[in-house]
Amino acid sequence: MNYKMILNTLGIVLNLEGVCLLLPLVCSLIYGESNALIYLCCVLACLVPGIALALNKPEKRTIYQREGFIIVALSWVVMSIFGAIPFVATGSVNSFTDAFFETVSGFTTTGASILTDVEALPKSLLMWRSFTHFLGGMGVIVFIVAILKLSGGSNIYLIKAESPGPSVSKLVPKVGSTAKLLYAMYICLTLLEIILLLIGGMSLFEALTLSFGTAGTGGFAILNSGIASYTSYQQIVITVFMILFGIDFSVYYLILLGRFKIKELSEEVRTYLGIILVSAIIIALNCRGFYNSVFENLKHTFFQVGSVITTTGYSTVDFDKWPELSKTILVILMFIGACAGSTGGGIKVSRILILFKSYIKQIKITSHPRHTYKIKINNRPLEHETLRSVNVYMAAYISVFALGLILISFNNFDFTTNFTAVSATLNNIGPGLNLVGPTCNFAFFTDFSKIVFSVLMLIGRLELFPILILASATTWKD
Amino acid sequence: MNYKMILNTLGIVLNLEGVCLLLPLVCSLIYGESNALIYLCCVLACLVPGIALALNKPEKRTIYQREGFIIVALSWVVMSIFGAIPFVATGSVNSFTDAFFETVSGFTTTGASILTDVEALPKSLLMWRSFTHFLGGMGVIVFIVAILKLSGGSNIYLIKAESPGPSVSKLVPKVGSTAKLLYAMYICLTLLEIILLLIGGMSLFEALTLSFGTAGTGGFAILNSGIASYTSYQQIVITVFMILFGIDFSVYYLILLGRFKIKELSEEVRTYLGIILVSAIIIALNCRGFYNSVFENLKHTFFQVGSVITTTGYSTVDFDKWPELSKTILVILMFIGACAGSTGGGIKVSRILILFKSYIKQIKITSHPRHTYKIKINNRPLEHETLRSVNVYMAAYISVFALGLILISFNNFDFTTNFTAVSATLNNIGPGLNLVGPTCNFAFFTDFSKIVFSVLMLIGRLELFPILILASATTWKD
Repeated sequence: MNYKMILNTLGIVLNLEGVCLLLPLVCSLIYGESNALIYLCCVLACLVPGIALALNKPEKRTIYQREGFIIVALSWVVMSIFGAIPFVATGSVNSFTDAFFETVSGFTTTGASILTDVEALPKSLLMWRSFTHFLGGMGVIVFIVAILKLSGGSNIYLIKAESPGPSVSKLVPKVGSTAKLLYAMYICLTLLEIILLLIGGMSLFEALTLSFGTAGTGGFAILNSGIASYTSYQQIVITVFMILFGIDFSVYYLILLGRFKIKELSEEVRTYLGIILVSAIIIALNCRGFYNSVFENLKHTFFQVGSVITTTGYSTVDFDKWPELSKTILVILMFIGACAGSTGGGIKVSRILILFKSYIKQIKITSHPRHTYKIKINNRPLEHETLRSVNVYMAAYISVFALGLILISFNNFDFTTNFTAVSATLNNIGPGLNLVGPTCNFAFFTDFSKIVFSVLMLIGRLELFPILILASATTWKD
Repeated sequence: MNYKMILNTLGIVLNLEGVCLLLPLVCSLIYGESNALIYLCCVLACLVPGIALALNKPEKRTIYQREGFIIVALSWVVMSIFGAIPFVATGSVNSFTDAFFETVSGFTTTGASILTDVEALPKSLLMWRSFTHFLGGMGVIVFIVAILKLSGGSNIYLIKAESPGPSVSKLVPKVGSTAKLLYAMYICLTLLEIILLLIGGMSLFEALTLSFGTAGTGGFAILNSGIASYTSYQQIVITVFMILFGIDFSVYYLILLGRFKIKELSEEVRTYLGIILVSAIIIALNCRGFYNSVFENLKHTFFQVGSVITTTGYSTVDFDKWPELSKTILVILMFIGACAGSTGGGIKVSRILILFKSYIKQIKITSHPRHTYKIKINNRPLEHETLRSVNVYMAAYISVFALGLILISFNNFDFTTNFTAVSATLNNIGPGLNLVGPTCNFAFFTDFSKIVFSVLMLIGRLELFPILILASATTWKD
């Protein structure tokens, strides 16, 4: 185990976080808040240990898959601990567990909150809270790999551990260049949303925070009413961008290169858009009579469907009041999630596609055993290793889900609350149903549950294995 | 497709059902009911088409996997349709959909009921209702293979389609002899339970019906209060036998041969017993204070845990009133189910074991990529085909569960009711939580939902693929 390399990278992560904390500091100065000094302390709290660790350069920079997972898992834990300090230091949140939950929820782009009154927070802290979504969406390690030469040829292990999806597709041969491209597209798309929201009459502060939340598919709002009070134009812009950020970024790369054709859209993206369309139509039919006009109905339906499948978690209406069919569809969308290679969470459409195709194959080979069938994705035979990884992912996913459900049930809340709360955190969505519905929050849970939820959010964002490997004894045996 | 062989076997199944319907006829005569003639008509309704089909012998008796699945799937559907006739003919149930649901629930050993007052049924019909559990538990096709030379060397395809578990273990090389042995042990174990219940002062009628329900891990009771009003001795006997019928029958074969050693108990059986013990202890601790004594507490806890994990569905208390932790554990046990090669339902302990081991393997190979790891079950390397079949099973299982949940949510009942109702039928348990809790029934669902539940029960009992293959278009293309 290359411990020195692990510590060194953690130092770099802390330094990056220190730099990012300048954003709320600046915000605080702009809005004339009294918090500037506090943020300065937070910046130093990151930079002092960060610089110390980063200066201690390891001789051997090679790492393997194991170190890749551990570096990423530890980075996210450390980032969340240090990112929680501003919440407590500014006096906005009393308990460190709550602040940790809120920060994990931010970085993992979950958007579940323990705050009962978001509007009471200083603007600088709201900015930090939303910015964690932006940082967590594309990934901190991806950012570091994009700007630094970290570890020779083994950066791929870091990217693999942090990027969602059953297989990592490199846009260009070099890992560092892929990371740069991903961040470039991510920033451009976010800027586009900010501009469109500004055109719609939103203040810069609102446009920035809400776009950060959309970009990372996070879901932290800055009003207690969520997104309900914004204009139809603004809600539609957010809907479109939620759905866009749930799409595999390689699509945007093709657009960038001018090589994009609608016809050649990957099966995953087509399925993803298809699921959105079909779900929204069914829900719209199921919820007819809930809204004054067809426009209102479709606007809210597409918003909520887009929000849940991309695991953003914004809401314009209280979908917990919708009929059971609509709610059930939303619960299933929570599990499906967005496309691999996007900023969204959940199991991912590509995994669902692969599982579904393996099941269709079984039916076919049983009926016609003399034929040979190959599972194909995008007209290419699926690699055995990818299928294996999807199956293992599902096995681990179900185990983690069941364990999470048992641990949360100690609270004695109802099954729907527990089930959807575990689903909302493990899939990085935010809201669930009943006591954790879109108008509610996670404040009433015990500290123990909040820690369980925090771990579930981290497990979900990093797609299970980094955290599971960090926590398993066998990892630490040489 | 060997259509003649399919029809011929269906004829044999109908004849067997006709003979079985003599049981309620005899019962009716013994108890001096006025239904004897009705049962005679039911017997004839089976035998007339049955004999016609059975006499039309196919020249080519060879079948393949596809026909195996189709024969089994169609047999179960046909059996359930004809088995439902007595419910309607005796005037005990008004709607044929209800009667069909009840019969499917019987044959699939689910034990979910649409009857609001079981005690109003004539004794002959109660006997038939419980006997469907007995027949469905070990399987109709298994019985036919045990007594008849059906189709040369291809009987294995029939057994494979009807027997639960990821791989069929033949006790002896010949399929017919294996089937004979299985039924011999099944009958002996059932007789043992009947005798022990009679010793405990139960009437023969009660001992027979309840033992049929235990043997098939069915769960139809003959009192509205379920098993609550029986003595502690009787409840404990039932507990023990429920757990015994959830064990892989090859264990009893070893006992029969005098070659059984506790130490050599398979991993699956040890895990199964371990899960029961741990779950019961946790629930007993969680429910302390609910009952007057530790004995009462443990008695009820072990009964309910045994009932749910074996997917029997009997109950001595209303576990829907237990604390959420206990209920959550029961819901998870619903999915785990009993051992492969037993009469129990659910996903099966062996599949859960294989999934869990594939996940542990992943953690190990990530940490130590230069080692090679093989998943071992009972110290033998797991065959790739078995792992593949488990993974495909899970993919199909999740798809069916999600679709079932959506279809049931049309009713607009709450999520807990829908989720546990789908779980209780797909896993062949019987009761769920909330509106389908142990003191409730399925009467209030719409006809559409009852048909969906019936299909789910059949899909669950036959372990997904027979029904899915029957219903898929590709099967019928030659």
